[in-house]
Amino acid sequence: MIKNYIQENKDRFLNELFELLRIPSISSMAQHKPDMEKAAAKYAEVLLAAGCDRAEVYPTKGHPVVFAEKIIDKNKPTILVYAHYDVQPADPLNLWTTPPFEPQIRDGAIYARGANDDKGQGFMHIKAFEYLVRTGQLNCNVKFIIDGEEEIGSPSLPEWAIANKDMLACDDILVSDTTMIDEKIPSINVGMRGLSYMEVEVTGPNKDLHSGHYGGAIANPINVLAGMIDKLIDDKGRITIKGFYDDVVELTKEEREMLGRAPFDEDEFKKFLDVDSVTGEEGYTTMERTGIRPCLDVNGIWGGYTGEGAKTVLPSKAFAKISMRIVPNQDNKKIAKLFEEHFMSLAPKGVKVKVTPHHGGQGFLCPISSNVYKSAARAIGEVYGIDPVPSRGGGSIPVLADLQQILNANPLLMGFGLERDVIHSPNESYLLSQFFNGIESIALFYKYYTE
Amino acid sequence: MIKNYIQENKDRFLNELFELLRIPSISSMAQHKPDMEKAAAKYAEVLLAAGCDRAEVYPTKGHPVVFAEKIIDKNKPTILVYAHYDVQPADPLNLWTTPPFEPQIRDGAIYARGANDDKGQGFMHIKAFEYLVRTGQLNCNVKFIIDGEEEIGSPSLPEWAIANKDMLACDDILVSDTTMIDEKIPSINVGMRGLSYMEVEVTGPNKDLHSGHYGGAIANPINVLAGMIDKLIDDKGRITIKGFYDDVVELTKEEREMLGRAPFDEDEFKKFLDVDSVTGEEGYTTMERTGIRPCLDVNGIWGGYTGEGAKTVLPSKAFAKISMRIVPNQDNKKIAKLFEEHFMSLAPKGVKVKVTPHHGGQGFLCPISSNVYKSAARAIGEVYGIDPVPSRGGGSIPVLADLQQILNANPLLMGFGLERDVIHSPNESYLLSQFFNGIESIALFYKYYTE
Repeated sequence: MIKNYIQENKDRFLNELFELLRIPSISSMAQHKPDMEKAAAKYAEVLLAAGCDRAEVYPTKGHPVVFAEKIIDKNKPTILVYAHYDVQPADPLNLWTTPPFEPQIRDGAIYARGANDDKGQGFMHIKAFEYLVRTGQLNCNVKFIIDGEEEIGSPSLPEWAIANKDMLACDDILVSDTTMIDEKIPSINVGMRGLSYMEVEVTGPNKDLHSGHYGGAIANPINVLAGMIDKLIDDKGRITIKGFYDDVVELTKEEREMLGRAPFDEDEFKKFLDVDSVTGEEGYTTMERTGIRPCLDVNGIWGGYTGEGAKTVLPSKAFAKISMRIVPNQDNKKIAKLFEEHFMSLAPKGVKVKVTPHHGGQGFLCPISSNVYKSAARAIGEVYGIDPVPSRGGGSIPVLADLQQILNANPLLMGFGLERDVIHSPNESYLLSQFFNGIESIALFYKYYTE
Repeated sequence: MIKNYIQENKDRFLNELFELLRIPSISSMAQHKPDMEKAAAKYAEVLLAAGCDRAEVYPTKGHPVVFAEKIIDKNKPTILVYAHYDVQPADPLNLWTTPPFEPQIRDGAIYARGANDDKGQGFMHIKAFEYLVRTGQLNCNVKFIIDGEEEIGSPSLPEWAIANKDMLACDDILVSDTTMIDEKIPSINVGMRGLSYMEVEVTGPNKDLHSGHYGGAIANPINVLAGMIDKLIDDKGRITIKGFYDDVVELTKEEREMLGRAPFDEDEFKKFLDVDSVTGEEGYTTMERTGIRPCLDVNGIWGGYTGEGAKTVLPSKAFAKISMRIVPNQDNKKIAKLFEEHFMSLAPKGVKVKVTPHHGGQGFLCPISSNVYKSAARAIGEVYGIDPVPSRGGGSIPVLADLQQILNANPLLMGFGLERDVIHSPNESYLLSQFFNGIESIALFYKYYTE
């Protein structure tokens, strides 16, 4: 029984985790390069000890990736676990109650940088795997990717994954690097939105002009850009780009009801953001607007004089960064193309318009009818005594979108973190109860997944 | 005869002007402070020698102002001449054919920094005045203000003028600090637009948010600001602010025809600015749009992420600098108030809006039916052999708008500069023919003004 295994081994689990937590593997700081190598080597060691056939540290252009696997039968399904060994910087250090790289247990929680994100959450997978191997219950193949650059946007992983595509082949991707709604309302994140990010440039006259001498007779690129931006969303909150919604899958009433089970207090939400009103696409709730519906936001705008005081310039150019969150089944490259065509068509006479796509990413969705979701839901339901809510995330995790594309497998985000863990901040923590419940849930997941 | 007087004294005139041109009175450079004082003292000396009763250097918080006057009879009308003794910096020095502060005559023009702007043009007034005094023909009072800070925005003059309001009392203000259309198409600038310059701030959520997590459910201040800006001008190019046009005086058909005599080549204008189309208020020509009609331009806009690459931020705030060029009879303070009310009324739910006025200035207009205009037109018509065009300037000269307000007298801009003079640039020049024609025109002006 996994419960007993955890009980008997808990001190060892914590000691092993603490060894990982003591390595300040901060990926964004060059001075920690030796720590990155130390952490990668340590993870390989831990993965081998847990029962992998092999565990290797792969160099990349940046920090190394750790890959490990146990292949029991090539004909059986394969789970790929994604986790990361790098952490955020720990400053401001003076706000930590105990030093960030000297893990401590207080009030039922582990306190350390990485306690949750992602050393704590990643380690649950290694220990659940260890249990299954040692008790002879592992009935599928398991592969591990431990990324060393998640906190800096995983710049090296996609290239490495493409080069090692066959080695990474899998049926499902399992990740514990996010939160659940609450201990009493467990949830599994089944999908994330994708992203199409554009930059636009509007040119009016070929030089900055004196607004007194020319104002009134020449298209002002800022005024024009403002008008073009305004036309991108109609008064029902719908994006006006032709064909934009063609690939958006409408959720069934049942699916929307299931998502709607997640608790949400609109008054608290408004108070938190200090806004008098929420807004968005007509006919959808706030949770739906951020989770299952696409949207368009200007992320940045600039042009003309932006310093102190007043300058009477009629500028030559105005710029904006405009991004669209897309939903699974929308293709970010197609959307980028539709945006460009539509935006160009909005240009009035007297200006030239340039549209440049920045990065994009696909959304992804793990169907709740899939074996992987059902197994995870059953496992969590058993451990927590209540069925989890299938939630949808509004943001994008580009590295997972990349892995999904490269490996053609949907990631399932089985996160056991809680808001109270304040990852990325001083006094990051991880509840022991969540750590142990996570190990138990993951072990049960494999049981149901291979039943 | 003024013609003979100029002929007989031309070498002396040039020698005296060259002495002024040799002083590098660059107001924006602290190292030239002694030169500013030297230039001010020299102007006072030149004005006394020309026939003023008194000429004094007045200290201000910045560079000194020179004031001089000749009062022949308090009951007769008074002309106030405004000119400035400061000049622009001369760099890049290597582009000058001869050194900027060693005036030289080449190809019928004076080459030096300030040859035109405004030492050359200002000096014409002093020499025309000298002629009238020496030949006993001066039949009105004349006052001179020689500003030392025009090139840096005349920060000290308004305060000084308010403090010396009675001393500066006059009927008309005469200025030669601008251009005429062409030697063959002389023109007099009878009016300038005023300015109302605002800054706006739109606040959405109280902090920058992740656009993935919140996008679609929260008013994005950039999108909102774009929409509000777009609503300020309708599709006929009219400003939508309630009451905005109430004080705009429509010109008569005759007045528009007279202004329309100024030559204007729209194709060349578009080519110069590299735009495929002009634009603006329906029913008006390009010259009218920039001269006699008000307009609204965004001079600057900023918000969110404006660096390289992509950042998925849903920003808390967006800002814009928005200015309106107003026409004579519109009040900049009233317009600022109307703008604020209207802009606030455009704010949708979910945002907070703040409007802050920057500086403003009144437009001014010297009626072509006035004695001062008629006298100037007759004088220039006689010298150039063709009636001048009464033109209107689209920009604002804040110091003149200030003087107009303080002294309740309209400035008439009798400029003798030409585009070819490239003021503010290397190799600034001033045609001798324009210099002498200017002196002659000004002398004749006084004759007709006091007839």
